[in-house]
Order: sequence, then structure tokens, then C-alpha cells
Amino acid sequence: MTGPAENYRITFLPADRKVTVPAGTNLLRAARQACLHINASCGGTGVCGKCRVLVEQGSVKDGISEKFSPDEVKKGIRQACTAIVTGDVTIRLQETAGLKSGQLGTEVPERHRAAMYVFDLAELREEGIFSPPVEKFFLELPRPDHNDRQADAGRLLRSLNEQYGERHILITLNMLRRLRRVLREDDFRVTATLARPVNSRFKSKLVHVQPGNWTTRNYGLAVDIGTTTIYGQLLDKQTGEILAEAGDYNRQLSYGEDVISRMIVAERPEGLRQMHDLVAESINRVILRLLKKKRIDQDELTSITLAGNTVMTHLVLELEPHNIRRTPYVPVSTLFPPIRATDLGLKVGDHCMALFYPAISSYVGGDIVAGVMGSGMYRTDKVSLYIDIGTNAEIVIGNREWLACAACSAGPAFEGGGILHGMRAAAGAIEDFSLDPVSLEPMNLTIGGKPAVGICGSGLLVITAALFECGALDQRGRFARNLDTARIREGRSGYEYVLVWEEEAGIDRDIVLTEVDVDNFIRAKGAIYAGVMTLLSEVGLGIADLEQVILAGAFGSYIDLDSAMAVGLLPEIAPEQFLYVGNGSLMGCRMSELSNHIRKDVIKTIQRMTGFELCEVPSYKDQYVAALFLPHTDSSLFPQARKRRQAMNLRAGDAAKNRQEPRE
Amino acid sequence: MTGPAENYRITFLPADRKVTVPAGTNLLRAARQACLHINASCGGTGVCGKCRVLVEQGSVKDGISEKFSPDEVKKGIRQACTAIVTGDVTIRLQETAGLKSGQLGTEVPERHRAAMYVFDLAELREEGIFSPPVEKFFLELPRPDHNDRQADAGRLLRSLNEQYGERHILITLNMLRRLRRVLREDDFRVTATLARPVNSRFKSKLVHVQPGNWTTRNYGLAVDIGTTTIYGQLLDKQTGEILAEAGDYNRQLSYGEDVISRMIVAERPEGLRQMHDLVAESINRVILRLLKKKRIDQDELTSITLAGNTVMTHLVLELEPHNIRRTPYVPVSTLFPPIRATDLGLKVGDHCMALFYPAISSYVGGDIVAGVMGSGMYRTDKVSLYIDIGTNAEIVIGNREWLACAACSAGPAFEGGGILHGMRAAAGAIEDFSLDPVSLEPMNLTIGGKPAVGICGSGLLVITAALFECGALDQRGRFARNLDTARIREGRSGYEYVLVWEEEAGIDRDIVLTEVDVDNFIRAKGAIYAGVMTLLSEVGLGIADLEQVILAGAFGSYIDLDSAMAVGLLPEIAPEQFLYVGNGSLMGCRMSELSNHIRKDVIKTIQRMTGFELCEVPSYKDQYVAALFLPHTDSSLFPQARKRRQAMNLRAGDAAKNRQEPRE
Repeated sequence: MTGPAENYRITFLPADRKVTVPAGTNLLRAARQACLHINASCGGTGVCGKCRVLVEQGSVKDGISEKFSPDEVKKGIRQACTAIVTGDVTIRLQETAGLKSGQLGTEVPERHRAAMYVFDLAELREEGIFSPPVEKFFLELPRPDHNDRQADAGRLLRSLNEQYGERHILITLNMLRRLRRVLREDDFRVTATLARPVNSRFKSKLVHVQPGNWTTRNYGLAVDIGTTTIYGQLLDKQTGEILAEAGDYNRQLSYGEDVISRMIVAERPEGLRQMHDLVAESINRVILRLLKKKRIDQDELTSITLAGNTVMTHLVLELEPHNIRRTPYVPVSTLFPPIRATDLGLKVGDHCMALFYPAISSYVGGDIVAGVMGSGMYRTDKVSLYIDIGTNAEIVIGNREWLACAACSAGPAFEGGGILHGMRAAAGAIEDFSLDPVSLEPMNLTIGGKPAVGICGSGLLVITAALFECGALDQRGRFARNLDTARIREGRSGYEYVLVWEEEAGIDRDIVLTEVDVDNFIRAKGAIYAGVMTLLSEVGLGIADLEQVILAGAFGSYIDLDSAMAVGLLPEIAPEQFLYVGNGSLMGCRMSELSNHIRKDVIKTIQRMTGFELCEVPSYKDQYVAALFLPHTDSSLFPQARKRRQAMNLRAGDAAKNRQEPRE
Repeated sequence: MTGPAENYRITFLPADRKVTVPAGTNLLRAARQACLHINASCGGTGVCGKCRVLVEQGSVKDGISEKFSPDEVKKGIRQACTAIVTGDVTIRLQETAGLKSGQLGTEVPERHRAAMYVFDLAELREEGIFSPPVEKFFLELPRPDHNDRQADAGRLLRSLNEQYGERHILITLNMLRRLRRVLREDDFRVTATLARPVNSRFKSKLVHVQPGNWTTRNYGLAVDIGTTTIYGQLLDKQTGEILAEAGDYNRQLSYGEDVISRMIVAERPEGLRQMHDLVAESINRVILRLLKKKRIDQDELTSITLAGNTVMTHLVLELEPHNIRRTPYVPVSTLFPPIRATDLGLKVGDHCMALFYPAISSYVGGDIVAGVMGSGMYRTDKVSLYIDIGTNAEIVIGNREWLACAACSAGPAFEGGGILHGMRAAAGAIEDFSLDPVSLEPMNLTIGGKPAVGICGSGLLVITAALFECGALDQRGRFARNLDTARIREGRSGYEYVLVWEEEAGIDRDIVLTEVDVDNFIRAKGAIYAGVMTLLSEVGLGIADLEQVILAGAFGSYIDLDSAMAVGLLPEIAPEQFLYVGNGSLMGCRMSELSNHIRKDVIKTIQRMTGFELCEVPSYKDQYVAALFLPHTDSSLFPQARKRRQAMNLRAGDAAKNRQEPRE
């Protein structure tokens, strides 16, 4: 892996805003980071040609358009969206780019992102619990002779006990069948691999014996089995290092985007087998890619720790998910025994163990438990809120002493579902956005800088928030009908805002956000907010009691905190109390792969986790209805957002005044 | 099964000897039981016509020969060998049958057999340890509802705990895969089958869940895996009853009679698989027969406990036996994990567990450990000697506090190997015998009353002892050259005794016992006696310290104690101290099938069992050489035998005198 990119300082004039960005960032993103707006409706692909800037000091790579005259190029005019940062540089924004709003100076609020939580390996070491669930031991056994005729198996066990204090070991028939040969292949020098029980009072299992010393080659995998994507990490269990990461789509996607459709397929004859085979194949592709990357043999993997929601876990294990979708929503199991990975069709050595994170209920799965572990929530004193936003938003509230959890069906809006131009976070998705409050011209930023083809979840949030903050959307999510812009218009299904004109888009029509989309978004965010509030009140707490908010999941990584609070998705909490854990599920899997002690903590943790069924809490419905506004019926719950809107309106007014002056 | 046959009293005149025999016994066997000799050289098949007797009171079935005149038949003359006891009867032996020796009255010693040891089920019950290693529990689970959404697996485990106090239960993936359906098939009424660990502090395993209540149908098998024969018992684990018994040849026999030849085959490519498949097929035939007999479905078997010598156990488990036959004789394992019986290719339900008796060493196997358990030796206070005689004779000495064991290679003589007309105990084998001390005419009794075709182990013992006691064989095993009988003659390979003339035999030549045969027999019995004496001296004891002798194995069941002491196979010990356990291995398996507690005792017992390698004890060779005589170089070790021989010679002299009188 390459080291982190170097960072450079970008100074934007005339506002004199300074940001630090990694080499390779384009100037549009740098401006967005500096909370500066540059009109850029094509999404940053160099098509619209609106994002002209002047490089005053230093230089950038690329950014030259055929629309520029040689003079302009010589002067330092560049397209912000294609100009790449390669060193410290000073940039002057052009008047035409609506920079007046950017010029308004330091009172423009900073953007807030949650701080990244990094799982601390050194801590495990310090606590002496860095010992993986599957460990290797090198043994030099005494050779049998006339004074010592102990059987091969007994000889091995005796040495494990004498040399490492390992007792209570179960040997399987498969091990015994190979043992004689293996012991003698390198003259009774062998490496024994033990799979540990969660509870140390039970038996360890001898899963592998190899001739020679292989203790330095002990690899594991952490795998997050997502409904959409499978993520894997290849781990060196000796060092704890992540050697490689890879992700791939869950091939079940061809049978439907959500877990419900997968469950329906699983009920068909052979459907369960089919669903299992598809997800197993997807996992295998990730495994293969990881092993190839680091040239590690599949036989060198000794364990895989997996986590997924309860449905995905059932499908991987080929357990019937039928009653998960039927009242009273009962899974086959929430605890899963350690099994041979090959029994799941995984292409690894037959000694490799598959360890699954336990679930809490049908709707709070192993991925959430893994997140609670991976994020350290299970052992913090702080009262924390853990949110993983997807089609189902899972919410956990608590600390090291107690944990309450629930799932609420947010609907697929955050994954692009039910949104006219909604899409998953893929190349060409508008993922970030700002709005000129006066002209209502957009600054669209797409994933990969590709021509815009749609809007992904994080984009939807930022767009809705921006439109609402500048007054283009009202509290009920209706567009203002009286604004002087062609971008707000009446479309086929009501009013809409045009994000990208067809000629600048990667698709053959305008990319718009409709009032129906906004409605769907409001329902989604309302469900989540109501879930948080209901669960809080069930445990007798209020927002003020929360000392920490942990955001997890793919969506969580891109979440713009200010936008989320502006629309009422997240309660108003000081930004510094937010933590982002990334793929919490994967992080939890990694922890368990590296520390068997954590596996014991998992069991203790799930015993402390109380599941709530929100749909059965009477107040949930009221909470939900009250949250079907931007940001909420009771806007006093969002005082900061109100202040921001007021400031925004003021600034918009000033800007309009400024802009009008030259015209006069 | 039919009930036991009724017993009848037979009175033999003129000696007035009375014996009680079951209905269906022929008169020849009744006479033998009464220690009376009737010349019957054809083996009891009605061919030689020598065994005429007179029925004086009562009547018998059959026994009429075409050689008899109508008058003789009317008078009550019958052939003893084909006349069947159907009621009380008084029989007068004919002069011509050499009955003078029988007439000598009560001073003729009784025949001694070891008392049958019967394993006491009631005792297990009284001690509260009658609980099989695989048990069934009926559960009526609460149906899931909105207040109780526990997963299927958790629900089941909760009820097992609440209703039966069962905790620490491992559920396999296979169980989970069926669980949802099974729980709902009979509305959450299920029977759970738990396989217990040997040590109760470890986990039980949920191996089966069935809809409805099946607790009354819990069957098990005890299986003795012999080198020659597989014996099985079908057990009702609720009642402890033996429902059926069956045996079949080990199909490995086609690759050689002894374990060495099997091990050699197992070392060939695919040889181990081949050996495994043959013995598995043999076990399957026994299982199939047992299940058919009682119309029990293979799915109703929950466990099979198996015992065999170390080589057979390795072959059934497909473990490489290679180092068992190579110094320093190390098996792959002496402890064997519980496994799914189907993993061994056994045709049973896939929840059926296979439990193997542990071994002590390469040459003291699970069959012996099972015998020590089954015979109660492991818990007796009496210092006991346990002997299982076969190609290898295994010897255990000890009591509840300590146990010493060893194997000595007796050679195949007792199984018919190395004996010119030797054969296994099958139809037509001469299995019992008596000798007219004067005429040296034989009374041959064959298995199944079939025409004689050879001599099996028990026959060999009795024949040798009888020939030695009457002086036809000397201490070195040489035939007397000067006796007035055509039956002792010089044959192709030295002197020999003709047991059956060709015209009366089931084969096309005379059946003889040669001096070479006797030599082989002496070596075999000498090895065993030397083994016993060496092991005794290794533990610092002598014959006088033995309080009990336990005979096991097929040979042991027919062993004539007087003959065994006469030739010096067994040390001279009072006959009432002998116990016969039959197939001790099978009995031990049955005990373990019925009481999991016994399985724990097995582990304790093998920890107390010390193995000795006789070939490395210097005194063994001396003991062996000293035992290469009839009965021993030091005949003072066998004072009773000496007395018997002296008495026999006296009687023979008298009889000769009596017989001569009429001639004069």
C-alpha cells in the first residue's frame, strides 16, 4: 500500500479562506471544503465551464479548457473542477462564480464532519488481550521410543500442555487421520493450530497440524456481509496489520435490493440454496481478490469473522429466514456456532473456522453488534447513540453498562430508492452540493468526477438541506413558487429543482429533485429521528443526555452534520461529540479476529443489549408524525439550525443587494 | 425372542449320574456334561453308529438308525448323538461304548466351567447412573408472540434449561438448518436429543430435534469389532433391555486372518480406505439385521458404542495403523472423539453418534478396556486376572485401585491357525471331546452336530488335555509309541492321533492331531501362561494373590477349566474363582450405551491402567521356555492336575482289568 498523500494549503481569495487538502484534490472540492460556493452544475466534469478560477500564486495541474483563450490560460485562469492540487496555491474566485456569497467572510459556518474513530490495536496489546481466536503453536515433540510409546495424538497434546499450558483440546477425526504422516514429515516438528472457545472453560479445537514452523504465517479475514456490498479485510494475525481490503457487490442483488425480496426468493423451492450460493460466491470473490493481492495461500487463512444483518447471516448460513418477515418476527437463531468455513462453500482450507457475530433480533443484526464492539461503544462510560443508516436504520443507545437497540424502517431513500434520480453511491452520483443562495445556481460534486447521472444518499441530504436553508423549500418540503430562477419549475409530477441540465448531464434528460423525492426523504429522516427520540424516551433519557454520537455505515461516512441537523435527520448535538466509525461491522470483525477476549465481551455485550420494537411503542407514531417536517414540527428542537437559516437569509439578502449594486 | 427352553433331568445308568439339560439337547452332549464317555467318533452325526444307548424310562425324540432292528428300536435302543431330550428320561449306557470308565462312579471329577457373569442393570438404576450418553427430552415450547420474540434456537435452549436443567448445549449448523420447520410441524412440541460429554463440565451437543414426543423410542447399539467377527446388540435405552443380537464375519477376512495382514494391506495405496470400507460394510450388515429383527428405523438409533482392538479401531476410523506394527509400536491415538456415525459410512441417521472405547496401547485395545468395564473388574476390590484369549492374548491384572495390562502373542493356534486340521469355531468343528482311557476311542462333539471337518480352539484344548491326562501324550507333547491302538500312528509329519476316520468325517481324509499341532498348541498356551506369570511378578504378586479370574472372548466361553489347568494354559486356581463374561467387549459397550457415568469411569480406568511390554521384560523369556511343557517344567505349580493324572492312570488300569475279565 502507498503511504498517505502529501497535504497542501490552499488559500481562497478574496475571502482569505485557507484549507488543507491532500495532493490530487481538485479545486472544486477544495472550495467546497472551505465552504465556498462555485457554480458548477455539470458535477465537476469540465463540461459546463462555469467554475473558472484564477491561480494567483503557485501552480496546479490541468484545469485548462478549450474554451479559454491563450491569454486567459497564461494569466492563470483554470477550471476549478479539473484543476488538481500539487502544491500550496492561492486561488482567486471569479465574480461570475457567485463568489459574493463566499466573500461574506468568516461568519459563514464551517462544515462539520464527524471525527474518524480509529480502532487502537496497541490498546489490545497493552491489555494483553491481543490473542486471536485461532492461534498457531510450534512444537518440537520428543520422538517416540521404547521408554515413551505414547500415541501420536497424546504426544501432541502432552507437548501443547507442557510447552504452552494448553489443555482441554478436542481433536477431530479429520485431524487424527492426517496426524501420523504430518508428525513424521519434519521429524516431529509441527505447528498446531488451535481454535479457541469463546468461554475458556470449554474446549479448544485442534483444527490443523502442519510439519515445520508456520507460526509467523497466520492470517485471518474480517468480512462485512452487506445486503448490497461485501467488504473484506485481510489481516495478519501476528501483527494485527490490515494487509489488504476489498469489496464487491453482493450477487444476490440481481434478486432485489432489499432483504425482504431476498427472503421471498429464499422461500421458493431451492431458493434458499440459491441465495446462499450467491452470497457465498460474492464472499469468495472478495477472498480471492484479497489473497491474490498479498500472494497468500488459502490454506494460510485460519479464521474468518463475519458480520451481517440477521437476514444476510441466515442466508450465508443457509438458515430459513421465513419467520423473520412474519409476525412476531422470529429468526432461527441469534447465536451461531463456530463452523468450518468450507461447510459454507467458502474457498479456503478445510481447517479455516468461520465465526459469526451474534444478532440481537430479526432486525438488529450481527453487523450492529459488531459496530458496537468495533466502535468501542460497549466499553465507554459515555452515554452514546450509535446509528447505522441504510434502508433500515439501526439505533443503539447506551454505554458499557446498558444498551438499548432498535431498528426503524427508513425506506430506501438514502440508498437512492424512491427518488426519481436516486442511485447508489457510484461513479457519477452527486454526492456533495452547495447552492448559491441568491441565484440558486448549484455546485454539484459527483463521485469520481464523472458526468452526473443521479443523486446518492449523501447528495440528497446536502441538496435538501441547502434548498431548505436558503428558503427554496419550505418546512413541508414544498418548493417556493415565486423565485426568480429557471431551476425551480413545475415538472410532470409537481414542482422540482433542476440540478443538472440535460446537456451537462451524463444522462439524456435533466437531473432533478422533485417534491415527491423530498417527501420520501422527509419520511426517511423522520423515521430515523423518531426512532432515536422514541428509544431515548424508552430508556428515560433526552437528547441532552447523549455524550457521544457514533455514525456508522457507508452513508455515515459522508454525512454532512450541518445538513443532517438542518433537515432534522440527526438531533442537534455539538459536532465535536460526533464520531464516525466507517464500516463499524468490519471493524468489529477485525477486533474479534485479533482478540479472542473480545469474543467473550461480545457475549457479555449482547446480554446487556435490550431490543425494542418501535412499531409497538405507542409514542413512536406521534414522534414520527411530528418529524415529517423540515426540520421538525417543533423547530425549537433545532435552535442552531434556526439560527443558521436566519443568518443565511440575511446573507442572501446582502448578496442580492451587493449584486444589484453594479447593475444600477 | 423366544423364552428360555425348559430344562429336563437326565439320569445315566449304571453310574446313576444325573444332569439337567435344556430341551433339545442330544444325549451325547448330556453324557459329556455328566462326564461320561460314549464312543462317538463321527462327531455326533449318526454316521459311525457307535453311540448306542438304551432309553429305560421316559422317551426321547429321534435317535433311530437304520442299523437298528425293529426289536432294538422297540426295546429303546437309540443313537445318543441324534436322540433329542424332550422330557425327563433315564438312559442306560451300553457296554460296547466303553462305559466301564463311566461306571467308575462319583470319584470321577466333575467338569468345571467358569460361572457366567451377568451385568446388572438394576445396579445402574440403583446408583442413579442409568442415563444414556445420548438422551431424549420432550419439550412443549411456548409459542413466540409479541412479548416473546426469542429466536427458535434460544427458545429451545431456554426450555431445556427450564424444564430439565440442561445447560451448556452446542447446536450444530445442521440442527439450525432444520430447526424452524421442525419446531412448527407439531406446534412447538418437540423431542430434543442431547449427546452428553464424558466430562459434564463440557458441552452437550444437540444432535436431533423431532416434532412430537419420541422419548420412548431411543435405541442404541453395542458393537464389538472383532478381527474375525462383528457382534452387535440392539438396546432399548429406555429400559436397558437387549432387543436383539447378531454377528457377522468381518469382511476384511478375505485379506488375511490376523491384524498384521490387515495393516499391511492398509499401507497400500487406497488400502486403508479399502480396509475401512470392508469393516464398515460388515458393521452395516449387523446393524441392518438388528434393525430388521425389531422393525426399528435407522433414524431411531441415537448412538453406537464400539470397541475393538487398536488396529480394528484404527481401521474403522480410517486412521493409519502403520506405526502400530513398527517399533516402538505407536498408534495414532488411544482416545477417540465422539463422531457422527455417518462419517464412518455407517448406515444410520445423521444424528447418530459413534462412541469408541479408548485403547491403552497398540496391543491393548478398546475391546480389553471395554471388557474391564463390562466385567466389573474396574470396580471390584478383588485382585483379578482378566484374560481374553485369541491370536493375541490380552491380560489385565488388578482391581479398582490399579490395573496392569499386557498383550502376548499366542499365535493363531486357538483360532485354528498352524494346526493341520485347525479351523475357526464353525459348523463341523470338533469343539468338545472325551477319550476312553483304555481303548483311546474318542467321543467327538461337533458344532451344530455336523459331520466333523476340523478342530477349533476349545476342541484342541480338550483333546490335548485328554490325551495328556491318559498318558497318550508325554510332558514334551510326544505321543506314546507303545499303545495298543490304531489311532496313534506315524503320519507324514511324525506321530499323530486319528480323531475321525475318513469314512466318518465330513472331509475326504482322516482328521488327525499331529505332534506338530501339539507343539504349536504348547507354544500358544506357554506364551499366555508366561504372560500371566510375568505380569504378576511385575506387579509383585503371585498366583495365590489372585482372588478372581475373568475369562473373556469367544474362546473363553467354551474353555474347559480342568483341561486348561491340565495343560498349563491357566494357573491352578479354585474353579469357583473363575468368571466368564462372554464377549466382555460387547458387555462394556452395552454398559456405556446405558450409562454416561460409565464413560467417565472409563477415562478414570484407563488412567489407572499401566501397559507393560512383555517382550521387554527380561524374565518373560525364561517364563516362556519353562512353560513349553505339559503342564510346565515345574509340575509342582499344578498339583491338582498331577493328582488328576495319577487318578486317571489308576482308573485306566482298573478299567483295563475289568475289561479283560470278560475276555478271560
